[in-house]
Amino acid sequence: MNAPATTVDNDIAHLARQAREAAHQLLAAPPAARSKALRGIAGALRRNEAALVAANAKDLERAAENGLDQPLIDRLRIDARAVARMVEGVLQVDTLPDPVGQVSDLRFLPSGIQVGRMRVPLGVIGIIYESRPNVTVDAAVLCLKSGNACILRGGSEAIESNRAIADCIAEGIRGSGVPEAAVQLIGTTDRAAVGALLRQDKYVDVIIPRGGKGLIERITRESTIPVIKHLDGICHVYIDASAEADMAVEIAFNSKTSKYAVCNALETLLIHASRAPELLPVLAARFGEAGVALRGCERSRAVVPSMAAATEEDWATEYLAPVLAVRVVDDLDGAIAHINRYGSQHTDAIVTSDYLASRRFLAEVDSASVMVNASTQFADGFEYGLGAEIGISTNKLHARGPVGLEGLTTQKFVVYGQGEIRQR
Amino acid sequence: MNAPATTVDNDIAHLARQAREAAHQLLAAPPAARSKALRGIAGALRRNEAALVAANAKDLERAAENGLDQPLIDRLRIDARAVARMVEGVLQVDTLPDPVGQVSDLRFLPSGIQVGRMRVPLGVIGIIYESRPNVTVDAAVLCLKSGNACILRGGSEAIESNRAIADCIAEGIRGSGVPEAAVQLIGTTDRAAVGALLRQDKYVDVIIPRGGKGLIERITRESTIPVIKHLDGICHVYIDASAEADMAVEIAFNSKTSKYAVCNALETLLIHASRAPELLPVLAARFGEAGVALRGCERSRAVVPSMAAATEEDWATEYLAPVLAVRVVDDLDGAIAHINRYGSQHTDAIVTSDYLASRRFLAEVDSASVMVNASTQFADGFEYGLGAEIGISTNKLHARGPVGLEGLTTQKFVVYGQGEIRQR
Repeated sequence: MNAPATTVDNDIAHLARQAREAAHQLLAAPPAARSKALRGIAGALRRNEAALVAANAKDLERAAENGLDQPLIDRLRIDARAVARMVEGVLQVDTLPDPVGQVSDLRFLPSGIQVGRMRVPLGVIGIIYESRPNVTVDAAVLCLKSGNACILRGGSEAIESNRAIADCIAEGIRGSGVPEAAVQLIGTTDRAAVGALLRQDKYVDVIIPRGGKGLIERITRESTIPVIKHLDGICHVYIDASAEADMAVEIAFNSKTSKYAVCNALETLLIHASRAPELLPVLAARFGEAGVALRGCERSRAVVPSMAAATEEDWATEYLAPVLAVRVVDDLDGAIAHINRYGSQHTDAIVTSDYLASRRFLAEVDSASVMVNASTQFADGFEYGLGAEIGISTNKLHARGPVGLEGLTTQKFVVYGQGEIRQR
Repeated sequence: MNAPATTVDNDIAHLARQAREAAHQLLAAPPAARSKALRGIAGALRRNEAALVAANAKDLERAAENGLDQPLIDRLRIDARAVARMVEGVLQVDTLPDPVGQVSDLRFLPSGIQVGRMRVPLGVIGIIYESRPNVTVDAAVLCLKSGNACILRGGSEAIESNRAIADCIAEGIRGSGVPEAAVQLIGTTDRAAVGALLRQDKYVDVIIPRGGKGLIERITRESTIPVIKHLDGICHVYIDASAEADMAVEIAFNSKTSKYAVCNALETLLIHASRAPELLPVLAARFGEAGVALRGCERSRAVVPSMAAATEEDWATEYLAPVLAVRVVDDLDGAIAHINRYGSQHTDAIVTSDYLASRRFLAEVDSASVMVNASTQFADGFEYGLGAEIGISTNKLHARGPVGLEGLTTQKFVVYGQGEIRQR
């Protein structure tokens, strides 16, 4: 911790100080200036399409040389269509309601002071992400819209693309009234830069990592700055005794298969013992057609013997693949206990026609999203009407679930007085 | 970190697991059960007054033997009046609005699902505090009221008192429908227990330390669990060009002198250059009478030469004593820049008659409480109408400023569907 500061340390500290200074200036920037900056960025991206594609070509070439997988190369690619999508994304964020400065709960108190809460930017946000270069634009504009300065650290495989995008952002901000230093890209691929950023607790208010579990665990371990993080998504659907049969099958199927490699995908299906004989064969057939491998508890396998046997480990596994664990439970209590024990507090759903069961499930399942009669794959910022999301948080403090603009802000108390003093 | 687990580690882990289990049970406990538990605790404290005073006598005796300061001994003392105050405190918390289960922002979305946010307990809260034994009761009932389980670790000098209070709490909870394990006192004075508690991130959701800066810094450094912390309170009053003279003097005086050793006390007074010649002599006289020593910048001392000279260090010092730093600034920008640079983002006030200055100060000062024309000493849960406070947070994430019941809760998304599935 007290090792002598390296050049990278000094560079990152300098950049973080500049971001902090920009964050203070942003507090004075009117909404019109932030909007002008966003529209400027959209314009600059559009104007510089050729330069973006050319820079990206260098990344693609290096990726091919390094033998990157085709899916990773596809995620890296910027073509005319990708630039158009980035521009559209920026303009959409510009149209979202401005969260900054909203005052709520303003009321007079017996002393005569009037107290409320004002929504304000967090300050400086560090975002550490992997390959997709479009995150550079998305993260920058979400931070600007919510009045924050940001420090962006993308993957080294996208460095040329990210630098070109950062140039467009700087060009777009210029003259808007927002300080250019409000968006800082870490332009080096030196891995030590991440460690250095995670120690800038004096200047950086929060770190948001986007990427694989390894990255997120490393960041959480090393950071002296609070981290808004997304770990596992071990999501459940519980088919209650009173569930409508067709709805139960459709929700279970959609929750698993709408996409496999997403954090809100179903990983363990729970079913009330009374419904297992009727529904498990139907579900097994449906999942079988889709190529989903089932791993069942003993009671499930008594109904559908073709299922593989689930082990204790399966209940705690996020497959992100066409594999599904299946368990028969005795009742609602058993389902809730299973979810609170093995789940990752991400997203869990009940299928039921029973009013009291729906209320108990909503109250007693301790997860970021709790659903009645809907697919777990709705757990998403756009589907929740947040307009855009910077990620999904599995934290309990601050932002929980999909994180939109509001998650990039905090509240402060504002007090309006007329000369009141405290009497003791 | 991977040292072999000690007995203390095992004991604390066991206790934390029990608290987690209780937290899950609390999610199912209706408001009436939690209210019954609170009234039960009030009754048990009242019935056991003699036992409490007797247990406390042992702590007082040991404190005297150990040569504790009289103010510390006074803070430790439980007499009939102190018990009555505890009982009153418990009953007041019982009458506060229940934060658990409030649903907000419920609305239908284009997919047909209805999405809202439900306020829910954080889960398990660890509270680490120093001498005052009344914190044991206050913390326990605030946690119970907000549906949380808690693990309490008081100071070793109050161990007998805390054990007696914990017995009353257990007696009061019994039969209410709230699990007894919802309130756990760490009954050992072994210092290793704190370290062990700070590593229970699997079972404990948040740590709230209450005590001196040394304690809080140690906890922040060691904890693998998020900490709601209160560090410095370097609070400012800025007397603007347009300030009403009498109001400026009264607010500055009250902000400093209402109490000295509180975190919301004024530490640095800023004054617009145009008002210094008129107001600094009045302020110096007023503070002089109260025995407050002033330390001024050069421009302040040009007006009031009797002031000591302030150094750079004074701007960053929380005196908690009858000492006040004074600085002349050129304008509102200078005041805001000083506060954002040297302050601790706790509580800052402007005295002004200028509408635009008031708006700029509220928006641009980046502190948990920002005030216009009121004493900084109003920054307090009771004065803000929160009903009771468990502490004041200088965090930016989650709870900021005075932390009441709401700060002990979080929100989760709730989704009401009728069988909707996600279309891609």
